Amino acid sequence: MAKLSLIFLFAIVFLQASAAFADALEDPPKDLKVNAQRLERRIAELAEFGMNPHGGLDRVAFSDADIQGRKYLVSLMKKAALDVYIDAAGNIIGRREGRGSDLPPIMFGSHADTVPDGGKYDGALGVIGAIECAQVLHENSIRTNHPLEVVVFTDEEGGLVGSRAMTGTLTPDALEVKSHSGKTVRQGIIDIGGHPERLDEVAREKGDIEAFVEIHIEQGKILETKGVDIGVVEGIVGINWWDVSIEGFANHAGTTPMDMRQDSLLAAAHLIIAVNRVVTSIPGSQVGTVGRIKAEPGAPNVIPGKVAMSLELRDLSEEKIKSLFAQIEKEAQAIAQQTNTEIIFSAIDATAIPAPTDTRIRNYIYESAKELGLSTLFMPSGAGHDAQDMAKIAPTGMIFIPSVGGISHSPKEYSRPEDITNGVNVLLRTILKIDKSSTDRTS
Amino acid sequence: MAKLSLIFLFAIVFLQASAAFADALEDPPKDLKVNAQRLERRIAELAEFGMNPHGGLDRVAFSDADIQGRKYLVSLMKKAALDVYIDAAGNIIGRREGRGSDLPPIMFGSHADTVPDGGKYDGALGVIGAIECAQVLHENSIRTNHPLEVVVFTDEEGGLVGSRAMTGTLTPDALEVKSHSGKTVRQGIIDIGGHPERLDEVAREKGDIEAFVEIHIEQGKILETKGVDIGVVEGIVGINWWDVSIEGFANHAGTTPMDMRQDSLLAAAHLIIAVNRVVTSIPGSQVGTVGRIKAEPGAPNVIPGKVAMSLELRDLSEEKIKSLFAQIEKEAQAIAQQTNTEIIFSAIDATAIPAPTDTRIRNYIYESAKELGLSTLFMPSGAGHDAQDMAKIAPTGMIFIPSVGGISHSPKEYSRPEDITNGVNVLLRTILKIDKSSTDRTS
Repeated sequence: MAKLSLIFLFAIVFLQASAAFADALEDPPKDLKVNAQRLERRIAELAEFGMNPHGGLDRVAFSDADIQGRKYLVSLMKKAALDVYIDAAGNIIGRREGRGSDLPPIMFGSHADTVPDGGKYDGALGVIGAIECAQVLHENSIRTNHPLEVVVFTDEEGGLVGSRAMTGTLTPDALEVKSHSGKTVRQGIIDIGGHPERLDEVAREKGDIEAFVEIHIEQGKILETKGVDIGVVEGIVGINWWDVSIEGFANHAGTTPMDMRQDSLLAAAHLIIAVNRVVTSIPGSQVGTVGRIKAEPGAPNVIPGKVAMSLELRDLSEEKIKSLFAQIEKEAQAIAQQTNTEIIFSAIDATAIPAPTDTRIRNYIYESAKELGLSTLFMPSGAGHDAQDMAKIAPTGMIFIPSVGGISHSPKEYSRPEDITNGVNVLLRTILKIDKSSTDRTS
Repeated sequence: MAKLSLIFLFAIVFLQASAAFADALEDPPKDLKVNAQRLERRIAELAEFGMNPHGGLDRVAFSDADIQGRKYLVSLMKKAALDVYIDAAGNIIGRREGRGSDLPPIMFGSHADTVPDGGKYDGALGVIGAIECAQVLHENSIRTNHPLEVVVFTDEEGGLVGSRAMTGTLTPDALEVKSHSGKTVRQGIIDIGGHPERLDEVAREKGDIEAFVEIHIEQGKILETKGVDIGVVEGIVGINWWDVSIEGFANHAGTTPMDMRQDSLLAAAHLIIAVNRVVTSIPGSQVGTVGRIKAEPGAPNVIPGKVAMSLELRDLSEEKIKSLFAQIEKEAQAIAQQTNTEIIFSAIDATAIPAPTDTRIRNYIYESAKELGLSTLFMPSGAGHDAQDMAKIAPTGMIFIPSVGGISHSPKEYSRPEDITNGVNVLLRTILKIDKSSTDRTS
């Protein structure tokens, strides 16, 4: 009897769901396009918040400029008929209900904060582009099955704060970190309307979000160099950092013969070259970088006794990173012996594991680009993005557009209006494809 | 008639001179030795001026500790029956008349100032040792033919200030330099009793000084490593400095593929290794050092766009320095091409030309050591010394004693009492040999 009731109940639910899906969106109008002029104008308008005298953007998270910029974005969301709220982590979420209001939302967006003296497109493209998609759907009275959520993540540049909160991985320690604004992250979240004491409300589980899609400038020059319109991101690379300490012996540069030296900078030079050699010794898009170096005591007439330097390795495969590091460590041992120094690697906690994107969403991005007559390249994202957090809890896709000169985190950061429009059109189609595909699967 | 008078006059002068030289010193007593205990005690006593809590010496030039230390040295000079005066550059000079009071003096000494947190022996050995020689001659009633001048040079560590003044090469600009004490050199000279406005009185010409001899700790570990007692300095090496600027392009370490980088630190690494390879590619005691490096922007996740580093080359031969630099420059061009960077060398003014010591005095030092049963090594001085200035205006000799561990400019600087005594005994004999030789030549 109880069994029969349950079956009956399921049948009713199923029939209701089917009814809802029956009037689901068909293929979107072939000529559905985003508004290129509006996109361009709004990116320029957002750039007015925090612009410094030489054209760079100082819209660091939690600053006054950030707070003003966020207000502007909220006003745009409202124009797109989105229901706006600030979650406990300070993320701005603009929701548009779908036909199946119980379905998990399709989320898309990026961040609005910049690095100090940053550019107009990093993050901004992703939030202005996401709002544009919502507005075009609104203007064309297109109702998706899934609810849509446009998101502006909190403090991406300071450590993916908003997306970490959403994936339940923002640690209490991270709240006490001093952000670029000078405020702690905790205070910053309060100042933008969040509630750091209620972060657990923000965390979403696997299945809570149907899909996440982010459009972003490439921040490299691969697309521009190869003349490709759209990058289909295969994943966000894993990043491993080490502090490298090289101990030699500081000594008088005049009185210490060449064969009696323990020159830590000479050892460092050999190691920097070894890193380059190991990383480029196999095919692939892995990168290895020594970006920071300090030699002590640092006088022209003293042999450096101590060098501290950084090592960073990035790749889509954690295995490859491990294997490259093992080779570098082996070379370092030989260098230490040869130069009579000691080389010690200390792994740094601030690492990111590789975050592959969803194969299905990659294909939607690829197909959308093809439909629009755009060329594509499947590529990793070498930079970190909120998408890497979201990939932990939802099928995730990421769209890249060309960065002129590959320049980013700089006032010189620039992407062409036509590339921006192309990218946002691909985003719009991708969202609709995800929505339709989910319908196809469920109905 | 006038001619005849002149010849007559010369003859009288010659006869008088010969008469004076006739009772010149014979070979010094075979057992004439300096007082080892007194030497050791006085080096320890001088070290009380400026000693910091961890045993280093902060007796930087013109500091209170320097002024007190100089007073102590003046008191020692007076005990050695020297006539003491402070010259316009602040050099302390203790003079002991010779039999031929019109003869140019034999000068010996060193400096009493230290680097910040320096050691007890650098400079101190040379002045305490010089005073000891004068005192032994006084105690043994040995009168040399030449006047003797014991000198304590002003501010050696700040740029050979006293000896530069004595050789007429201290520029007006150098007076305005801020010394380690915080005072300008000008003010410092005033504070130690000099007269910076009368520096021209200090300058001596070629022929004004019969010879200059300095005893100093080696500041390297060649003598200790080879187990040699006395270093016979062949000359003070020339030092050339360059600022090296490497321009690449700063870029995102994640988004810039390895083959699209212009990594200035990678170029710097190749150059550091090239410097080492070129300098060690030929026999000799030349040295080449990169001691200072700065990579910008200096973040672990940014490819360094700019590196500034130092290059120093030292050798007794200016020709060799030139040839080594030409080879390094050539390698740099190839590295710049290979790494897609630009490498620019800017020669720095603060260079020293090689200062060979006098062959005759070298032999006296060698012979003195042999007479005392001490082993010797002919070697360059890789460090700069007042002797390098004095070599411009007088036949110059320099005696090295072993530095334990080769450590210098450090609280750990140490030379063994027996090495100190050996060295000062060699100095005493060398002075007497110079004096006797001059007599032999003139009589």
